[in-house]
Amino acid sequence: MKGNSICELFGVRYPIIQGGMVWCSGWELASAVSNAGGLGLIGAGSMYPDVLRGHIQKCKSATNKPFGVNLPLLYPDIDQHIQIILEEKIKIVFTSAGNPKTWTKILKDNNVTVVHVVSSSYFALKASGAGVDAIVAEGFEAGGHNGREETTTLCLVPMVRKVINIPLIAAGGIASGEAIVSMVALGADAVQIGSLFAASKESSAHIDFKQKIIDTQEGGTQLSLKQLAPVRLIKNEFYEQIQASGQDKEVLKILLGKGRAKKGMFEGDMTEGELEIGQVSGMIDEIKDVKQIFNTLIEEYEKGQQNILDL
Amino acid sequence: MKGNSICELFGVRYPIIQGGMVWCSGWELASAVSNAGGLGLIGAGSMYPDVLRGHIQKCKSATNKPFGVNLPLLYPDIDQHIQIILEEKIKIVFTSAGNPKTWTKILKDNNVTVVHVVSSSYFALKASGAGVDAIVAEGFEAGGHNGREETTTLCLVPMVRKVINIPLIAAGGIASGEAIVSMVALGADAVQIGSLFAASKESSAHIDFKQKIIDTQEGGTQLSLKQLAPVRLIKNEFYEQIQASGQDKEVLKILLGKGRAKKGMFEGDMTEGELEIGQVSGMIDEIKDVKQIFNTLIEEYEKGQQNILDL
Repeated sequence: MKGNSICELFGVRYPIIQGGMVWCSGWELASAVSNAGGLGLIGAGSMYPDVLRGHIQKCKSATNKPFGVNLPLLYPDIDQHIQIILEEKIKIVFTSAGNPKTWTKILKDNNVTVVHVVSSSYFALKASGAGVDAIVAEGFEAGGHNGREETTTLCLVPMVRKVINIPLIAAGGIASGEAIVSMVALGADAVQIGSLFAASKESSAHIDFKQKIIDTQEGGTQLSLKQLAPVRLIKNEFYEQIQASGQDKEVLKILLGKGRAKKGMFEGDMTEGELEIGQVSGMIDEIKDVKQIFNTLIEEYEKGQQNILDL
Repeated sequence: MKGNSICELFGVRYPIIQGGMVWCSGWELASAVSNAGGLGLIGAGSMYPDVLRGHIQKCKSATNKPFGVNLPLLYPDIDQHIQIILEEKIKIVFTSAGNPKTWTKILKDNNVTVVHVVSSSYFALKASGAGVDAIVAEGFEAGGHNGREETTTLCLVPMVRKVINIPLIAAGGIASGEAIVSMVALGADAVQIGSLFAASKESSAHIDFKQKIIDTQEGGTQLSLKQLAPVRLIKNEFYEQIQASGQDKEVLKILLGKGRAKKGMFEGDMTEGELEIGQVSGMIDEIKDVKQIFNTLIEEYEKGQQNILDL
């Protein structure tokens, strides 16, 4: 996309970013996406600091294209993560789940391009004020952690576009080239895609989780755990236990326990694991490699363009 | 839109349909929309049979363009409504909230074009099988009654597109020309717009409700009353009472009582009334007349087209 602000900002061919996802996006996925012309992100949320360093180093060996790291700011070892990112001279960091004021300046002072993920125009304005270079606006249909206002991507993107001037990346519900056209029409400069890449060959997720994404049909996910922090999950047995447990916060905390996401997405326990994925999983019906995914997205993008006639 | 299947089906200039809405869409709104080149719909859901007849007759006097009637199929006086529609030789009927099998054949046998509103591709297939001429796919962000699966418009439209061959109308979260482009890119042939017209000068809603739509900000609505039937509402005092009442069905029924929507949307009680509106109300900031709304939508449609660059 010639002259696209996001392509220029990141130095990539296509305005397509692979979302950083716990247990799915290691160096293999990130480097494959970057090699295909998009922006790959290593998801640090499920990595101890030394594991993150290993993934960064392997990613550097696997691609000479730009890639980045996604960093949830509420992570307990955040100081160490930041230190590794600076030591390894990572040039692009996507932050989420926390206050962008705390770390943006330090990262920017070290020549890192910083992007923050938000679920409302209020938080977009705050992040923009904190000096980030771009915003990801992620809607209700997205997998994993989600906003309390439940604003959908279709509503959120134009609302955020209205209040910020920096580049805008749409996320949530996007798994086709037509959906990319759809988001660009609304004023987004790029898209972030999660679920589709979670089910890719290069994803580090357990094969049973990838197959579960393929098998999940329309209506197969639900925004859950709202009493703690809203998370979109596949409606498996663990989800049913949450629903049956009532709405008490403490009961939910005990039920959730520790390592539920790892158990499901990485270890492949489809019954007791927490399976985070987007609504759009209902449209994903094949495990493809990243190169195939890009080819399809680009073909579909042209179809989406052709769908639009003059009024 | 030359050659657009929806424009041909209804005989209208623009693929823009005004949603039939309780207490908002009488003859004045429907005729204004039809005169502006869209398809106006009289919302029969809040009308006794003789009131509906009055609105149809006034609408006929106010426009010589095609218009239709929206009919919730669960309405108690449905037989009488259907009889009036046939007697008045209405040519376009949008049905919702009920089984399309029951009435589609009778309407079609009388040369009525029938469109059914759905919230899932499962119901789209059922409606298509019942012989309807087109489908409205309405997402989670829409105002008023809503589906249980909470599929957003961005996810729903391509899912429905995949399973049906008849014309498809996207609804929920659409209040700008850019959003129309966005939906067309996904494969929709037309859009249905509600909230924006609910706040129009020609809407029959109480002026205080129109002003409330203007005042409602991002995050100001919520899908509520899920234990009965999910309805998207403005978060006013009545909504807070619902939230505080617990989740018991019988308690909710008593709290809801009768005439809550009329009280709010038609009589102007912003505290105790049920105020049905879409998430997109957060983007509506002026009460305009229908002609102005169409001019803006058409201008924005061109902007949306220009946003789309080649990859």
